[in-house]
Amino acid sequence: MNTRSPSPTAASRDRILDAALDEFYTAGFHGATMRTIGNRAGCSAANVYNHFENKSDLLVEILRTASDEQFTATRNAIRRAGKDPAEQWRAAVVAHALYTAQRPRECLVANTELRYLGEIDRKRVVGSRDAQEQQFVDIAERAVEQGLFHVDRVHQAVTAVLLMCAGIPVWFRPDGPRTATQVADDYGQYALNLVGYRTPLNPLTRA
Amino acid sequence: MNTRSPSPTAASRDRILDAALDEFYTAGFHGATMRTIGNRAGCSAANVYNHFENKSDLLVEILRTASDEQFTATRNAIRRAGKDPAEQWRAAVVAHALYTAQRPRECLVANTELRYLGEIDRKRVVGSRDAQEQQFVDIAERAVEQGLFHVDRVHQAVTAVLLMCAGIPVWFRPDGPRTATQVADDYGQYALNLVGYRTPLNPLTRA
Repeated sequence: MNTRSPSPTAASRDRILDAALDEFYTAGFHGATMRTIGNRAGCSAANVYNHFENKSDLLVEILRTASDEQFTATRNAIRRAGKDPAEQWRAAVVAHALYTAQRPRECLVANTELRYLGEIDRKRVVGSRDAQEQQFVDIAERAVEQGLFHVDRVHQAVTAVLLMCAGIPVWFRPDGPRTATQVADDYGQYALNLVGYRTPLNPLTRA
Repeated sequence: MNTRSPSPTAASRDRILDAALDEFYTAGFHGATMRTIGNRAGCSAANVYNHFENKSDLLVEILRTASDEQFTATRNAIRRAGKDPAEQWRAAVVAHALYTAQRPRECLVANTELRYLGEIDRKRVVGSRDAQEQQFVDIAERAVEQGLFHVDRVHQAVTAVLLMCAGIPVWFRPDGPRTATQVADDYGQYALNLVGYRTPLNPLTRA
C-alpha cells in the first residue's frame, strides 16, 4: 500500500476539485466562479487557474472521474457475477445504484450541470457514459436472446433503469432508515422485474 | 368555450413565465436574471418586477403550475381507469410519463433547479409533489393488499418509478423514432413489472 503523502501540488489539485464539486452542487455551474471555488479550497482564484483553465475544465474533470469510477465498479461487479446474464444484470444495477447512493454530489451535478458544458466538453464526458450504458445493453440483449428477459426495446429499458438509479441521490439520505447497500439491492430487483425477468428463484415472485 | 383574448396584463404575465422557463432551462436559476428574463419576454426588467417580486417567485410559479397540471392529469387518468388497482397504476404512470415527455422544460427545471429555492419557497412547491406521490402510494398499497403487486417497500418503489419518469426529458426527443404516447405506454408496463405485477393478461409475460 502506498503510505506516502500526496505531493503538495496533487493535494491542492484534489482539494480544488472537491471544492469545485461542492460549489457546483450548492450554487450550480452558473453560480460558481473560480474565486468562490478558490475560497472553498482555501486558496486564491489564481491558484485555481494554475490547475484548471476554466470552470468547464473543472466540471469535465469531476464528471469524467465519477463516470470512470462508476464504469469500473459496474464492470468489476459484472465480472464477479458469473455467466448468467440475469445475475450479471442484477450485479451491474446494484453496483451502479450503490455508486449513485454513495456519491450523491457527483451524480446530482452530473444530472443537472452537464447541459451547461459546450459541445466538445460534453463529448469528453458522455463517451464514458455511453460505454457504461453499452455494458447494460449487451447483458440485456443476451438475456433476451436466452429467453430470460421479456422486453421489446432493450436500449429504452436500459435508459429507464439508469435514470431510475440516477434519481437515488434526490431522495436517499445516508442517515435514513435504510443503508445504501440495502437500497442498491432493492434497485437490482426492480431492474430485474422491469425487464420482465421470470424465474422461480426470483424472491418477489414467490409471494 | 372562452374565446376572448387574454387581457394585455395576463398575456404579458404568461409571456414572462414562458421566458423565465426558457431562461432557467438554458442558463440555470443562478445564471438567469430579471433582466435576461425580460429580454427574452421582450420587456424591461421593471416590467418583470411588476408581476413577480424576484426570480424565486417566478420559479415557484412555474414549478407549482407544472406540478398541479401533472397532478390533475394523473388523477383524471386514475378516475378513468376503473376499479382495478393494476389498471389504475398503469394509467397513472402513463399519464405521469406522458406529461413529462410533453413538458420537458418544466420537468427538467423542476429536477434541477428546485434545490436552489429557499426553504419556504421549496415547501410551496413540494406540497403538490407530495400529493402526487401519495396517489401512487395509495394505489400500490391497495394492489399489494389484493395480492396483485409483490413488492416490499411501496413508498420506495413509487419513488423509483416517479424518478424513472422524471428522467424521460433527459433523452426523449419529440422528433425521435417513438412518440411521447408510445414511450409513456412502455413506462406504464415497466412500472407494472417493477412492482412484481403478475397476471396472464400482462403482455410481457406471454413471451
